[in-house]
Amino acid sequence: MSKLNSLEDLFLMEVRDIYNAEKQLTKALPKAAKKASSPDLKSAFEEHLRQTEGHMNRLEQVFGMLGENVKGRPCPAMKGILEEAEEILGEKAEASVKDAGIIGAAQKVEHYEIASYGTIIQWAEQMGRDDIKQLLGQTLEEEKQADQKLSELAKAHINVEATAGK
Amino acid sequence: MSKLNSLEDLFLMEVRDIYNAEKQLTKALPKAAKKASSPDLKSAFEEHLRQTEGHMNRLEQVFGMLGENVKGRPCPAMKGILEEAEEILGEKAEASVKDAGIIGAAQKVEHYEIASYGTIIQWAEQMGRDDIKQLLGQTLEEEKQADQKLSELAKAHINVEATAGK
Repeated sequence: MSKLNSLEDLFLMEVRDIYNAEKQLTKALPKAAKKASSPDLKSAFEEHLRQTEGHMNRLEQVFGMLGENVKGRPCPAMKGILEEAEEILGEKAEASVKDAGIIGAAQKVEHYEIASYGTIIQWAEQMGRDDIKQLLGQTLEEEKQADQKLSELAKAHINVEATAGK
Repeated sequence: MSKLNSLEDLFLMEVRDIYNAEKQLTKALPKAAKKASSPDLKSAFEEHLRQTEGHMNRLEQVFGMLGENVKGRPCPAMKGILEEAEEILGEKAEASVKDAGIIGAAQKVEHYEIASYGTIIQWAEQMGRDDIKQLLGQTLEEEKQADQKLSELAKAHINVEATAGK
């Protein structure tokens, strides 16, 4: 454990955390796409996998901009969130009910990332690193859009079908 | 493992999850208040502890409204998020840097809760349970306000001090 002397140290620690979290997510998204029944939901997860790979790429750029090695740091939070998601994926459930549950779990993932990027972007601003702020701002925007899209999918038909027990 | 036949089954499972998550949080908040250096941040955590107890009380009312026993369900997501927070609390760090890190960790907690309540409120609406929707809507509003307050505290002075290495 090295001492966190500055916001820069904390920033780097958090970037390593979210880098690991995104990596965990790239392994979980294909499973979610496979278990989802709704074709729209499957597509949403497949699209978000491509976005997630782009988010990792942006973080790799940030490591470069900081002159640091590309390296993750175990992220127990994402591990726990995905463990909960796996529970839902493994439940015996009506297809539409399971889809509703999968969306709920996925929105927890999105919110973890929204909180994390929101924090590091604020720190980047404080550090005077507008280049990093701008780069990660694009990721934050995509995470918010992904969360919004999941809400829309749920509202549009998945929850309605789950209520009807279809 | 019982089969999830309906949105009602899924709703109850998720209420049990967030009930356990809130309980875990009541144990973590006093530690965060103790380790925080900023008096404003300490107060924010103390106030949020009182709110969290209120949130548990509302969930207990929901169990009653559903004719179900008050019972939690292990929530690995909150466990992981709090494990990450404990890591920050245990780091050797400059006081203001640690405060910035604690705020970041606390905002992850808030976002988990915002995602969870957002989901179950939508399900309650779908189930035609406006009484539950309204009750938990108050909690969701408080979680959003708590998240906002943490952002303001960070912006107001904590991140600035962390940058200066105070």
